[in-house]
Amino acid sequence: MKIGIVGLGLIGGSLALELTRQGFYTVGVSRQEKTCCLALEKSIVCESGVDLQLLGKCNLIIICTPIKFILSTIENIIPYLPPETIITDVGSVKGAIALPARELWKNFVGSHPMAGNANQGIEFAESGLFNNAPCVITPVENTPSEAIKNVREIWQRVGCRIYQTTPELHDQAVAWISHLPVMISANLISSCMEEEEQVRSFAQNLASSGFRDTSRVGGGNPELGLMMAQYNRQQLLTSLKKYQQNLDLLIDKIENNNWEELAQILRETHRDRNKFL
Amino acid sequence: MKIGIVGLGLIGGSLALELTRQGFYTVGVSRQEKTCCLALEKSIVCESGVDLQLLGKCNLIIICTPIKFILSTIENIIPYLPPETIITDVGSVKGAIALPARELWKNFVGSHPMAGNANQGIEFAESGLFNNAPCVITPVENTPSEAIKNVREIWQRVGCRIYQTTPELHDQAVAWISHLPVMISANLISSCMEEEEQVRSFAQNLASSGFRDTSRVGGGNPELGLMMAQYNRQQLLTSLKKYQQNLDLLIDKIENNNWEELAQILRETHRDRNKFL
Repeated sequence: MKIGIVGLGLIGGSLALELTRQGFYTVGVSRQEKTCCLALEKSIVCESGVDLQLLGKCNLIIICTPIKFILSTIENIIPYLPPETIITDVGSVKGAIALPARELWKNFVGSHPMAGNANQGIEFAESGLFNNAPCVITPVENTPSEAIKNVREIWQRVGCRIYQTTPELHDQAVAWISHLPVMISANLISSCMEEEEQVRSFAQNLASSGFRDTSRVGGGNPELGLMMAQYNRQQLLTSLKKYQQNLDLLIDKIENNNWEELAQILRETHRDRNKFL
Repeated sequence: MKIGIVGLGLIGGSLALELTRQGFYTVGVSRQEKTCCLALEKSIVCESGVDLQLLGKCNLIIICTPIKFILSTIENIIPYLPPETIITDVGSVKGAIALPARELWKNFVGSHPMAGNANQGIEFAESGLFNNAPCVITPVENTPSEAIKNVREIWQRVGCRIYQTTPELHDQAVAWISHLPVMISANLISSCMEEEEQVRSFAQNLASSGFRDTSRVGGGNPELGLMMAQYNRQQLLTSLKKYQQNLDLLIDKIENNNWEELAQILRETHRDRNKFL
């Protein structure tokens, strides 16, 4: 089986590396000649280049570009593909991708492998990156079952736990556990930065694990945070507004010294966090 | 030098253990006979009992009870103390403690060693717990300089980095880097739990490091979270309201597709987080 990978960053590079090691024939395409050279040099792919035509011989193509380039990449590669070629992607939102991509290409199946770390670029590619990571696949009405089967198998091969659902349910779920945390965490950092200099610089001396953990995702890759908001705007707004309402109630409880109600909330959050982890 | 420790939980136990190992004569007082026995058995203290009178011979006494018992503990021990005895505490708020405690006892100096972990109880006492932790001491007007010097020295001996400021500035700073994070993190958990069952259970499957880190402090000890709110109510409300205002603005930006302004915020939070860590 020949597998094409478009976009050789941390995700695309790590995926290519793992598949190459497993004996697949891998074709890596990047917009940058330099990245292609590095991918070949480090044996991350079997073949590499900037020309999308290289993908014509692949049975399965995985689009690993940033979200905003996924649809245009599909449009640009389809002139070179026989109709049985299967395409998938790795975008962290699915509603804005899966339905229009399905319009462009019958054998498209949306994927979202939830793997990664703070690094960016092929220099950090690591073969075990997907091991035990959840991967959501989001076929839509009429997606061919053969395409679904092949996409599931490839993610299983790199170690993912597969979940299958609708693009909408995927986007609702990731809004809660990934996109909302980024926004509330970023809002913590920006609010702290507005504090007057004397308090802020003293607070900076004292900040430790609690602040570090709560602010981590808000201090992450700004382009990724922006794309979450742009491409999962509606679901993110729904969860942000629920969060905002609850925050208003929480502040009311503290203002009104409703300590028993606050204690009840904190007992519940102490108990309920385990359900997510 | 004889050191008394009142309250033998994780903090009191760890402090006693470290001081005992360093050769200080330590006297541990707990309300529970069982805890006293354990402290002796494990050589955490040199002497232990439930009777506050034991503290009469100590030069320095460290109150390691929950915040709500600090002032009453000081009231209960002073009948046994000669006037030169120095008293400090480990409470995570200082305004509600340092001024009234100073009224009760001239040689009182408020302390807040910022150490700890998710464990509770003397069973988890560990000697290195304070190593490299920040410790804020908050003397007030007329606090004797000899008392300040002794309290600084004891925290330095267990490995703390010492900061000295007013109770008010301490409370403002910890509201931002400790108490506000607990509330926004708890609010994330309780908001997620209100999502409908189908979405929530799917989200629970996918939650990983981002959710884990952002929700960690909100799922912590509920009694501690409640006490932060009760005893640092005013400073916490100030930071919560600033956070709330900024959250409202952030939501507006997403609703109005102000992507350039959101991108600017996320670039700043990416850059500014390092200043705190």
